[in-house]
Amino acid sequence: MEVAVAEVGLIIPAAGMGTRLGSELPKALHAIGGTTVLAHALRAGVGSGTVSSIVIAAPSRWETRIHEQLEYELPDTVEARVVEGGERRQDSVRRAMDALPGNIDIVLVHDAARCLTPPALFGDVVSAVAGGHDAVVPGLPVVDTLREVDDRGVVVRTPDRTVLRAVQTPQGFRREVLEDAYRAAAPDEPATDDASLVERTGHQVHIVPGHSEAFKVTHPLDVLLAEALLARRASS
Amino acid sequence: MEVAVAEVGLIIPAAGMGTRLGSELPKALHAIGGTTVLAHALRAGVGSGTVSSIVIAAPSRWETRIHEQLEYELPDTVEARVVEGGERRQDSVRRAMDALPGNIDIVLVHDAARCLTPPALFGDVVSAVAGGHDAVVPGLPVVDTLREVDDRGVVVRTPDRTVLRAVQTPQGFRREVLEDAYRAAAPDEPATDDASLVERTGHQVHIVPGHSEAFKVTHPLDVLLAEALLARRASS
Repeated sequence: MEVAVAEVGLIIPAAGMGTRLGSELPKALHAIGGTTVLAHALRAGVGSGTVSSIVIAAPSRWETRIHEQLEYELPDTVEARVVEGGERRQDSVRRAMDALPGNIDIVLVHDAARCLTPPALFGDVVSAVAGGHDAVVPGLPVVDTLREVDDRGVVVRTPDRTVLRAVQTPQGFRREVLEDAYRAAAPDEPATDDASLVERTGHQVHIVPGHSEAFKVTHPLDVLLAEALLARRASS
Repeated sequence: MEVAVAEVGLIIPAAGMGTRLGSELPKALHAIGGTTVLAHALRAGVGSGTVSSIVIAAPSRWETRIHEQLEYELPDTVEARVVEGGERRQDSVRRAMDALPGNIDIVLVHDAARCLTPPALFGDVVSAVAGGHDAVVPGLPVVDTLREVDDRGVVVRTPDRTVLRAVQTPQGFRREVLEDAYRAAAPDEPATDDASLVERTGHQVHIVPGHSEAFKVTHPLDVLLAEALLARRASS
C-alpha cells in the first residue's frame, strides 16, 4: 500500500521505573546530561519532522509530571496526550494506541530509553512504511559471538550470527496492522516488542538498517555512554 | 581434573589493524585515554595476579613496537614474548600457543580490544578451569531482541534470547584441550572464537558470568564509552 501523505503518530511506552539505574523515579524522568530521558526521546521524535501526534504511556500517578515535560519540548504543530500505562510494556502500548487520533495512518512505537536515537532513523522507518511495508524495524548486525546454553550453563549450540539482527526502535507499522496484531494477541501472551505480535498475525516484518546511537539506556554503563555521546554532540 | 597450583599463560591475539576505528595503526596501539589498547589489556591481565606468562601475536613488522609496550607494563615476575600474527585471528592464536612455555597448564585467550575487562574476570575464568572445567567462557544475557532475517531483510524467526549468552573473553582452557582443538581444526575452517573450535572436538564449554566492562572496542562509539569509563575509574 502506498501512503501518499501519511499522518504519523508516535507512541512512547514510558511506564517503567528506573530500578536498574538505581533510581526511584520513572526511567523516563531520569536525567542524562541535565535533560530527562523522555525529553531526549521527544526531541529525537519531533526532530525527525515526520510526527504529528504523540501518545505517552506514563507510570500511574506520574501522568502530571510527565505531561509537564511535553509543554517544554513540543512545538504547537505536534499534538500530545498522556495515558496511564499498564502492567507490561504491551499493556501500555495497547492503551496508547486507543488514544491515537483518528487521522493517523502510520504508528511508530519507540522506547523512551533509546533516548539518543538520531532523528533520521525515525524518518527512515516512516519512509519504509509509507513505501509499502506493513511493519518496519531497525536492526543492526550482531557483533558478539552468541552461544545457546542449557540450564547448567553448558554450551549446546553456537547460532549463526550472520543471519541475526539486534532490533531497535522506533518500530513502524501501518496502523491497522498494529491494531489487528494487538486485537489478535491473547491478553497474557508476552511480547518483547511490537513487531513480534505482528509476526504472529502472518504479516511480513521488514528490517531497515539501525543506528549504533539508538542503544537502550538500561544499566549505569549505558548512562555513562549516553552522557559521553551528548557531550560529544554538544562540542561538535 | 583438579589443577592444584596451575601455571597460567595468557595469549593476546593483537594482529588486527584499527581500520574500523579510522586508524592506520594496529588496533592494539590505538590510544584510549592516553594509553594504548594493548597496555590497558596487559594491565588487566597482569592485575588479576593469575598469569605467569604472556604471548602476544603482533601484526607483521610491528613486533618491535609491540615489544616496547611490554617493557613498560610488565613486572619481572611475568615472562612475555611477541610472535608474528597470522592472516586470521585463529592463525595468530595457533602461533602464540606454540610459543607458550612448557610449564603452562591453563591457557587464557583474550582479545586486546576488550581492553577494560576487570582483572577479576580473568581470575573467575582461571578458577573455573582450575576447578575442573575443560573450557570456560564468560557470557552475558542478551539484552537486545533478536530477529533472524532472510536475504531480502524479511524477518523469518524470533530466536528465544533467554537461552542465549553474548560471549566475551578471556576464554580459558586446559592447555591440552585447546591444543587438541587447534590440531583437529582444518586450516581453512573459520572460527569466531577459540571455544567454538573446542566445541567441535566434543569437549564441554562452560559459561561463567561475564562483565559489562569487558566490551569490545570496535567502533568509534566504543572508544567514547571506553574513555568515559576510564575517566570514571580515575575519579572514583
